Amino acid sequence: MEIKVLKNIFESNRERASEIRELLKKKKVYMIDLMSSPGSGKTTITDRLIGALKKDYRIAAIEGDIKTTKDAEKLAKHGIPIVQIETSLFNSDCHLESSWIMKCLEGFNLDDLDLVIIENIGNLVCPAEFELGDDERIVVLSVTEGEDKPLKYPPMFISSKTLLLNKIDLLPHIEYDLNEVLENVKRTNPNMMVFQMSAFTGEGFEPFLQYLRGNIDAKIR
Amino acid sequence: MEIKVLKNIFESNRERASEIRELLKKKKVYMIDLMSSPGSGKTTITDRLIGALKKDYRIAAIEGDIKTTKDAEKLAKHGIPIVQIETSLFNSDCHLESSWIMKCLEGFNLDDLDLVIIENIGNLVCPAEFELGDDERIVVLSVTEGEDKPLKYPPMFISSKTLLLNKIDLLPHIEYDLNEVLENVKRTNPNMMVFQMSAFTGEGFEPFLQYLRGNIDAKIR
Repeated sequence: MEIKVLKNIFESNRERASEIRELLKKKKVYMIDLMSSPGSGKTTITDRLIGALKKDYRIAAIEGDIKTTKDAEKLAKHGIPIVQIETSLFNSDCHLESSWIMKCLEGFNLDDLDLVIIENIGNLVCPAEFELGDDERIVVLSVTEGEDKPLKYPPMFISSKTLLLNKIDLLPHIEYDLNEVLENVKRTNPNMMVFQMSAFTGEGFEPFLQYLRGNIDAKIR
Repeated sequence: MEIKVLKNIFESNRERASEIRELLKKKKVYMIDLMSSPGSGKTTITDRLIGALKKDYRIAAIEGDIKTTKDAEKLAKHGIPIVQIETSLFNSDCHLESSWIMKCLEGFNLDDLDLVIIENIGNLVCPAEFELGDDERIVVLSVTEGEDKPLKYPPMFISSKTLLLNKIDLLPHIEYDLNEVLENVKRTNPNMMVFQMSAFTGEGFEPFLQYLRGNIDAKIR
């Protein structure tokens, strides 16, 4: 019985994700789903992304947190549409679901948008199992989390297209083997795009921006 | 229906946790449940704990991971009983459940043990909702994860007794407000014991050891 219910949840989530994909295709809106452990730098990356792209694209953000509206407040300065989802209001608070994303999208005027950035719950496990209908799943992994995470959390790394290896400004201060983490990524998902960066200092952010612009333009132009 | 099933899962988990508590009381074994985000330092802390305490206590460890036996391998040098649980073998892989812990305990000879250390799945959300029958829930939070986590992940911080604020050796290299995180802990759980430490360098580990020895002795001596 438990398994049956779980299947129903996944199935209805997948159906709604497909509807979102259809809608965003029609409206020519690109959507990314940023996922990571707590404190890997998703909000700093979102902040930098909006700052760099808002001249050329009309952006909205969906911020997922169990509690607080802190992330939305941090991004308010950009003057773009932002929705904060507090998942503690729902039964399952460890991930975002496509039905909630659909509700957010219905609240935006999609004809006036090019890009939607979703910042998922800080959790390297559960969000991997819930498609949101986005064009690109991006995992953020901070170098302070160690080299073994791609092997220890395979669903997240297998289901994502892009890896942002963040906080490389801290490399001189920690014991970290860059080759090892890159090897672990390759073993888990050979097709993964990897960008090394520090969202805090801005180092290495430009190549990711160029790559993302290419992907967005291919859909919306 | 979904909610009913979820309640059943929580209820049966709680019942089994009570049985574990009874068993460990009878056998005079202290058990701790180490929880945190991925890469906060749980394994390094477990390694250091075993190294410091194995002269005075008979220890066993239960290592939880979605995939790989890497953590158990790291601890093998101590020559103590270790069980690795790979949760990808189960339906729900984001947390440990009390029934699995019971199975592990049944595999140990509890008459020959004083302390069991559980290293939970790297996840600051789901493990908070599953009691394991332990004596002490300990959250590890790395300073590289930012100051806001106690406010953003309240169930984990409210349900735990002790906080290990880890990786303080990196404080000179990051922007971090110690007062702010301590204030956030206090707002979320005023009774929480907080230890600042670097499990990597060993700085600040001794006060935590003394505190833990006191708690263990109070139960088993």
